Amino acid sequence: MSEFPVLVNGTWRPALELRGSFHALDPATGEEIPGDYPISGAADAEEAVRAGRKAALDMMSLSPDVVAAFLEDYAALIEGRAPRLAAMAVRETGLALEPRLLSVEIPRTVFQLRQAAACARERSWRRAVIDTKADIRSILGPLGGAVAVFGPNNFPFAYNAAAGTDFASALAAGNPVIAKAHPLHPGTTRLLAETAWDALLRSGLPRSAVQLLYHVGPDDGFRLVSHPLIGASSFTGGRPGGLALKAAADRAGKPIYVETSSVNPVVLLPGALRASSGEIAAELFASCTLGAGQFCTQPGVIVLLDDAAGGSFFEDLKARFLASGPGQLLGKTVRDGMESAIEAMSAAGAEIVAGGRRIEGSGFRFENTLLRVPASRFLKTPEPLQQEAFGAVSLGILAATEAEILAVAEELEGNLTGSVYSAPDGSDDALYARLAPILRTKVGRLLNDKVPTGVTVTAAMVHGGPFPATGHPGFTSVGYPAAMTRFAALHGYDRVRPERLPAELRDKNPTGAMWRMIDGGWTRGDA
Amino acid sequence: MSEFPVLVNGTWRPALELRGSFHALDPATGEEIPGDYPISGAADAEEAVRAGRKAALDMMSLSPDVVAAFLEDYAALIEGRAPRLAAMAVRETGLALEPRLLSVEIPRTVFQLRQAAACARERSWRRAVIDTKADIRSILGPLGGAVAVFGPNNFPFAYNAAAGTDFASALAAGNPVIAKAHPLHPGTTRLLAETAWDALLRSGLPRSAVQLLYHVGPDDGFRLVSHPLIGASSFTGGRPGGLALKAAADRAGKPIYVETSSVNPVVLLPGALRASSGEIAAELFASCTLGAGQFCTQPGVIVLLDDAAGGSFFEDLKARFLASGPGQLLGKTVRDGMESAIEAMSAAGAEIVAGGRRIEGSGFRFENTLLRVPASRFLKTPEPLQQEAFGAVSLGILAATEAEILAVAEELEGNLTGSVYSAPDGSDDALYARLAPILRTKVGRLLNDKVPTGVTVTAAMVHGGPFPATGHPGFTSVGYPAAMTRFAALHGYDRVRPERLPAELRDKNPTGAMWRMIDGGWTRGDA
Repeated sequence: MSEFPVLVNGTWRPALELRGSFHALDPATGEEIPGDYPISGAADAEEAVRAGRKAALDMMSLSPDVVAAFLEDYAALIEGRAPRLAAMAVRETGLALEPRLLSVEIPRTVFQLRQAAACARERSWRRAVIDTKADIRSILGPLGGAVAVFGPNNFPFAYNAAAGTDFASALAAGNPVIAKAHPLHPGTTRLLAETAWDALLRSGLPRSAVQLLYHVGPDDGFRLVSHPLIGASSFTGGRPGGLALKAAADRAGKPIYVETSSVNPVVLLPGALRASSGEIAAELFASCTLGAGQFCTQPGVIVLLDDAAGGSFFEDLKARFLASGPGQLLGKTVRDGMESAIEAMSAAGAEIVAGGRRIEGSGFRFENTLLRVPASRFLKTPEPLQQEAFGAVSLGILAATEAEILAVAEELEGNLTGSVYSAPDGSDDALYARLAPILRTKVGRLLNDKVPTGVTVTAAMVHGGPFPATGHPGFTSVGYPAAMTRFAALHGYDRVRPERLPAELRDKNPTGAMWRMIDGGWTRGDA
Repeated sequence: MSEFPVLVNGTWRPALELRGSFHALDPATGEEIPGDYPISGAADAEEAVRAGRKAALDMMSLSPDVVAAFLEDYAALIEGRAPRLAAMAVRETGLALEPRLLSVEIPRTVFQLRQAAACARERSWRRAVIDTKADIRSILGPLGGAVAVFGPNNFPFAYNAAAGTDFASALAAGNPVIAKAHPLHPGTTRLLAETAWDALLRSGLPRSAVQLLYHVGPDDGFRLVSHPLIGASSFTGGRPGGLALKAAADRAGKPIYVETSSVNPVVLLPGALRASSGEIAAELFASCTLGAGQFCTQPGVIVLLDDAAGGSFFEDLKARFLASGPGQLLGKTVRDGMESAIEAMSAAGAEIVAGGRRIEGSGFRFENTLLRVPASRFLKTPEPLQQEAFGAVSLGILAATEAEILAVAEELEGNLTGSVYSAPDGSDDALYARLAPILRTKVGRLLNDKVPTGVTVTAAMVHGGPFPATGHPGFTSVGYPAAMTRFAALHGYDRVRPERLPAELRDKNPTGAMWRMIDGGWTRGDA
């Protein structure tokens, strides 16, 4: 067997019940990258879940400092191996070494690991609540099973199943992780998991705190997320796969956090375009095409008034699209997805005004594409016209009246972000006041005068939103400690003897600094 | 038309597309209580959801003081009308006027309304996070649509769809409510909704902030919870109905919080029984049969070692069951459910040692029932043996060894509560240390030396737990502010102009007392 081993139950070993193998392609050339990776069968998933359950129980008695130290050690090891890791990712994903991978994404990834570690150490994220009179106490705690993390194609580090935000969040919240690599970058994931393993072996964590599968078939994926002994799952990626996993987990009553699609509407109010049409066109174009448009927050829908300023803005934007060269895509599936989404939008009445065609030849590329549709047409069939075409594809929705802008907003599905540009002189304020409440209920992050790409990792970040952007509007996958709370259960303790309580719920504050709500007031003191 | 009107879109009016009507029965006699209540068709649900969406948008610009004042006014009105409300509930549910309804449940209900109101006023529950450097801010906010609340049969006030904990939580979090009455007590729900309406008319809330349907068919229920314009739903009741609603909401990506069944295992460790067998038998028997066992936290499963102390304890418990008279049930469905659950448990190998039969004659009653099964038998088919028999039915699982006790715990499904009795002298501590981590992952509230019935309303309460007890292990339906967070979306603001931010996210603290996390630290100060 030439396949790389999987990491299951504390051992790197060949995949069991192999369902096949695969290899990565160099998206710049379409050529195979040497190295066979296994598609695991049901036995691997079963063993991983059972080992994860055991590790979860073992981790419940560990101090959060142990997992924090592991995450910090892992972050340092990633930094030390960054050139080798980035080189593999460049080859597998076609993303640029600089400025993207080496100086942006890897630093973000290690920052995330350290932030999650810091929150785990600090402990306030667990929201300890103590009622001394009733002797009833509650706290967020681990789920009691591993978290299965399905990583996406577009962030080989920051969202990697074996290193990214869900990995960091799940572990920092005290849960083992079963990483399911994205099949477009198995080598990067392997190098990361090997690095995690090096850190794991010298940590006090159980050996099954991190496990790795490269790929599973759909049925085995469903088994994984719905297994009685799994803690929870997370998935970032395309809508059909995400919704199928969600359905399986939902039926079993297992928590799953999916992020599956978003068109990130940008609404350009008329005064804003009268005031600074050129600047907005430049930054919007840059946002639409950044990284070949392969961001969850790429502006896929642009809503504006079809007046003189709007018309000339749209011509400017169109000219920028026409003058631009295609970016490098992550793979064939991205290219084909763009093509079929554009076809569907065209069939629903959108007109292609720039781009629209795949680039023939080796490698996977597609023209930067701008479409337009009258708002009246959009309002007739909003569904096909707001599907995500993952890549540099944006649809301008041109409204005849301000009322149509509001009607379009009311028809939007849930999105990660929604941006509104408005005039600095207040001339758009009345319209903004009518638009914002509608948009507020449709998006996770509301922006003013700003494009949605660029997700700052801060405690205040919301990278989430109503369905179908994500599966639950109350959570975020970026920003700590909030992202960690996805992977926590609410644990109540009713007259449990003091020595049996988690340290965080005993009368004495375990760190002298953790925030707790005691008898109705937040305090860092003792109970 | 003789039917009572529904409250939809700010008007009491006859139900549309009537699918039939129903009336309550007096469970003590089985006789009809005069008063026809309508089963609404799809048009009522549709109009209610649309009116709820509009009310939700209107409520977004109101101060939380408005909804708090409404909840407080409503609580005071309920107190004023308590005798009439309680009399109706006695007739419809057969629950005792005293000590239950008038001096326990109605006071709990108004306390809940006031607690939720206080949290809404205080605002810290919204978890405002401000990053001044990046100018990124986040806060929990309303869902943008009404919350559909499906109330259960067993708490005509404290869980009533038009007055109970979900009603209070959803409104205090800024959302309108569509109450769906439980068909066993439509009159109580009508009187409550009329009372809410009186308070609503003199509040500043939109007239559709509270709506009422008495009953809907299954398909209309599915439409309601999966409607694109609904905010979320909650359901407390039987498992089949709850899971069907959950499936419909999950498919549509709409949040739903279900609480559907729990057997609330009580594990009696050997030293505890050696030390205080009689006291434990007395309090456990009382908990099993309290209110005819019709509590979500009734101890349906009792696990103990089959040694001398265990055997004599179980004989004592059995004698208490045998000597007891049957309680009054809420209705025919409860009686029939007990009968079929006992049949299924018997078929799976459990032996009836006390009770087991329905009481013939008028009204709905059933013998208090105790069953037993060897742990070895339970471990063969744990599923049918841990189904909830809502009512005074408990199953003793007798283990041959301590290892069997642990194995039984590992096979338990998710539950609201799990109790462990252990010896005061430390002789059970080693076994407790092995049992507790397993049980911890299976229950919402872990108790020591205490029966699970009696749910104190405190901020530290956890009335939740892993599936199938509830649909998500991270939440509670009792205790404020935690219960309110179920009905909230996480709202991010990225460089939104200061005057457009919610008051709670502006630099100045809106109350001077609300807790916010600003630049990494919790503070009541300004940013």
